[in-house]
Amino acid sequence: MLAEAGIVLTPAEREAIEVADFGLGELERYGLQIVVYVNTERVCAKELVLFPGQTCPEHRHPPVDGEPGKEETFRVRCGVIHLHLGDGEIVLRPGDQHTIPPDTLHWFQAGEDGAIVSEFSTRSRDESDVFTDPRVRRV
Amino acid sequence: MLAEAGIVLTPAEREAIEVADFGLGELERYGLQIVVYVNTERVCAKELVLFPGQTCPEHRHPPVDGEPGKEETFRVRCGVIHLHLGDGEIVLRPGDQHTIPPDTLHWFQAGEDGAIVSEFSTRSRDESDVFTDPRVRRV
Repeated sequence: MLAEAGIVLTPAEREAIEVADFGLGELERYGLQIVVYVNTERVCAKELVLFPGQTCPEHRHPPVDGEPGKEETFRVRCGVIHLHLGDGEIVLRPGDQHTIPPDTLHWFQAGEDGAIVSEFSTRSRDESDVFTDPRVRRV
Repeated sequence: MLAEAGIVLTPAEREAIEVADFGLGELERYGLQIVVYVNTERVCAKELVLFPGQTCPEHRHPPVDGEPGKEETFRVRCGVIHLHLGDGEIVLRPGDQHTIPPDTLHWFQAGEDGAIVSEFSTRSRDESDVFTDPRVRRV
């Protein structure tokens, strides 16, 4: 999907793609495929690949060590993303983006063709994420 | 160039592409074409488009208001970039990237086919950039 979208990875990046099933054991329904480009103390950038209909479960990024939680902007590169924030839903198509403030509950699902999302954010600390479903294991 | 690379912009983004000639009046030699996706207090993401051989002149991002200067990661999407840091040169091809620490002098030039570079950084404050050539006017 990344190659079809014209996104070039190095061989090392291809081998390091993270496949996250959130401990739920149903990857095609609940999961993400993640390429982390950079994750410094201040900035993080990733590509998120979602299969058709695949969902990232509801979670939030709380404050850590006295710093505000992770702020993230999702920008859709291809496909459609249904982004759910509280009771609202935003539909994002290629070129659309949305910035999610720290500590805000959100979940998202790809449309029927799957999707690729560029994520621009502050430092990523996946081990600090708080998921609504207590069965989820992120790390 | 963006369309050829499969990068989708909204109509509003297409109209808001910044063409920066750095006040030197020789855009094809010295300049950048810039799409700013997001620039919050904490995070910034842009696409930089460079024509064949086009150069972004040497500059650094100093500390502002007691915060460390801008930290930026350049990731080449297509074309070749010659990134100059101090006396060294790094050649970046598609999929290659480099993180430039705050307050570090750098300049870069596209190869003969031009280039597109994704920039992931802390907040962008172009008016604070310090250029080596005193003729440069960034803002």
